[in-house]
Amino acid sequence: MNDANTTRQERLDQGMRVLEAVSGENGAKVIESLAEIAPEVAHQVVAWAYGDIYARPELAPRDRQLVTLGMLTALGGAEPQLEVHINAALNVGLTPQEIVETFLHSTVYCGFPRALNAVFTAKKVFAERGLLPLA
Amino acid sequence: MNDANTTRQERLDQGMRVLEAVSGENGAKVIESLAEIAPEVAHQVVAWAYGDIYARPELAPRDRQLVTLGMLTALGGAEPQLEVHINAALNVGLTPQEIVETFLHSTVYCGFPRALNAVFTAKKVFAERGLLPLA
Amino acid sequence: MNDANTTRQERLDQGMRVLEAVSGENGAKVIESLAEIAPEVAHQVVAWAYGDIYARPELAPRDRQLVTLGMLTALGGAEPQLEVHINAALNVGLTPQEIVETFLHSTVYCGFPRALNAVFTAKKVFAERGLLPLA
Amino acid sequence: MNDANTTRQERLDQGMRVLEAVSGENGAKVIESLAEIAPEVAHQVVAWAYGDIYARPELAPRDRQLVTLGMLTALGGAEPQLEVHINAALNVGLTPQEIVETFLHSTVYCGFPRALNAVFTAKKVFAERGLLPLA
Amino acid sequence: MNDANTTRQERLDQGMRVLEAVSGENGAKVIESLAEIAPEVAHQVVAWAYGDIYARPELAPRDRQLVTLGMLTALGGAEPQLEVHINAALNVGLTPQEIVETFLHSTVYCGFPRALNAVFTAKKVFAERGLLPLA
Amino acid sequence: MNDANTTRQERLDQGMRVLEAVSGENGAKVIESLAEIAPEVAHQVVAWAYGDIYARPELAPRDRQLVTLGMLTALGGAEPQLEVHINAALNVGLTPQEIVETFLHSTVYCGFPRALNAVFTAKKVFAERGLLPLA
Repeated sequence: MNDANTTRQERLDQGMRVLEAVSGENGAKVIESLAEIAPEVAHQVVAWAYGDIYARPELAPRDRQLVTLGMLTALGGAEPQLEVHINAALNVGLTPQEIVETFLHSTVYCGFPRALNAVFTAKKVFAERGLLPLA
Repeated sequence: MNDANTTRQERLDQGMRVLEAVSGENGAKVIESLAEIAPEVAHQVVAWAYGDIYARPELAPRDRQLVTLGMLTALGGAEPQLEVHINAALNVGLTPQEIVETFLHSTVYCGFPRALNAVFTAKKVFAERGLLPLA
Repeated sequence: MNDANTTRQERLDQGMRVLEAVSGENGAKVIESLAEIAPEVAHQVVAWAYGDIYARPELAPRDRQLVTLGMLTALGGAEPQLEVHINAALNVGLTPQEIVETFLHSTVYCGFPRALNAVFTAKKVFAERGLLPLA
Repeated sequence: MNDANTTRQERLDQGMRVLEAVSGENGAKVIESLAEIAPEVAHQVVAWAYGDIYARPELAPRDRQLVTLGMLTALGGAEPQLEVHINAALNVGLTPQEIVETFLHSTVYCGFPRALNAVFTAKKVFAERGLLPLA
Repeated sequence: MNDANTTRQERLDQGMRVLEAVSGENGAKVIESLAEIAPEVAHQVVAWAYGDIYARPELAPRDRQLVTLGMLTALGGAEPQLEVHINAALNVGLTPQEIVETFLHSTVYCGFPRALNAVFTAKKVFAERGLLPLA
Repeated sequence: MNDANTTRQERLDQGMRVLEAVSGENGAKVIESLAEIAPEVAHQVVAWAYGDIYARPELAPRDRQLVTLGMLTALGGAEPQLEVHINAALNVGLTPQEIVETFLHSTVYCGFPRALNAVFTAKKVFAERGLLPLA
């Protein structure tokens, strides 16, 4: 796919499949919450972010989430997205221990405030999924 | 105005007029909330930001809000200010559709997390003003 | 355009036309400089950023550059992109005076370091285009 | 201390003493809240940030808090940490008036949104400590 | 000063005196470099940042530079301003050792990339002033 | 290692081994460039960042570089560090194609300006290592 003839509709369909594989119903909830106000933003999340970018085989899903966790931690103020992607990270095979280690690692590059906000977001997600306390 | 003899009091008065024209009572509320703790910060918001900068005719009020929405989206973590300025943008003539398009445009430069936080802030403001669903 | 049947190739072609209208040869240079290393990044700049987003009529080209200048100033560290978009802003009808006023306005929201870096980038662009000194 | 033979345990003990001197029970609460999920992050806050860095006599505790308030304001999205360090600033001898002046000063470098978020965080801390209204 | 009758000209004069005391000729150079393109930005740096804010006795000049170094380090991409303010910090009584310790302290809150960029900017300033190697 | 009795010297030695394994001589150059001005910053890069954090087996070296590339891209203004870590990423087994895909992926979360600056930094590193053009 993603050749010169791929249509807008095909990208959307492909994006929906990838989004569901990565984010389960969390992705669908974000899309739904945009319906009344910004349907084109919703379309681009699915068709572009997931259909064009995530769908590419050049980087494994687990690798994509590692990079994403790093970016969202560094950005700051992206806790809602961090929550979605900590869930996504668990869905694609990162362990809770690896996710926490990612945030410990981030202290070197972003400092402790960004890292602590990320850890507390993970604490919320892990609690919801019954993963606490970590061994 | 704004010549060499303009006084601190005149800048404050001018700023109050501009702030009211742009932000209505939202601006007044921010000023009031600073009274007990930081009256000089309140003075500078009014006399400097609005009296010195916003009052200048070199850029139209609608243009100033477009730039402001862009900056607040890019900064992140400025949702309270974004709420004030989405209201201000509507007050000076931007349509809800243009505001949402601004945030769609911002995905190219700031990425989706910043843009989504801005869209959800707009959703709150638009709901309060009875503007949802957008046609 | 941008209906369900729009193809990847059509988006690319449309993006090329919009990019050229907005950025002239500066855009083409960025695309060319990516050829050896990241052709898919180049494709997405053209087909997505310009073909999908910029091409939409919901926001005027002049408005898009005002928002873009605001975002790039706020981000910081985006001087190469600011250079491209100060040129683009001039191309779509913003005056040099309005561009400088945009950066003066930005001091309120981003502070002086970001604003000064933007002004000095504008100084370079204006000098190259023979626009200095401003009246 | 901090010579070649200082052990991990000694750094931790030293960090605990410094953390308590600077942050009182607020520091202990942060550490405790990490126990279930990220004990090594907690260890590094204490043993490294406080035991290795804060413990150094090269910069006075009051100076360290001034720098810290500046950084946390500039970062944005670090309100929980700002709350801890506004308290710490009061503990090491900064007056409420100096803290507010710090945030007024920050408008020059970070703009008003960051400064206002910091002032409102200070308002919350000062209210809890019975310091409002400021004279 | 700074009462209700203070004029725009008086603020400018006051700002010029404070700017010179803090930054010596570095401040004047920044102002001069703005003359051709953005004289109002130059006016606001002097009359507002220095005349209104820096001139206030509520925070000592040395304290203002500590906060400023913290903010500029955290912002990133503000190396030109950091250069001006490392010089200013030396001018108002901070020692080279305290400045370097400020950047070491910043690793806790901003991470090493921001801190290293600041240290290398200090290295350039200290070399120009014949202060290297530090004892 | 990293038990309660690990000394400052042992952490430094361990950090030196890890730094060399990850960064080869690039790490050593950074350390050396700090000698005249900030030897304690150099010590903490080695003993803490590499000796305490990188040395932990909880996250694989390849994974740490993916997270690091994500963070440095998102931070912006960290091109010198990005250069070090694009080299490090190659050293620990990421392919040039995966590194470029990481930056394409980053457009979704940080926008194109940050991603493009990262790609151009990679272009410089890949050229130095004779890796261009990518197949």
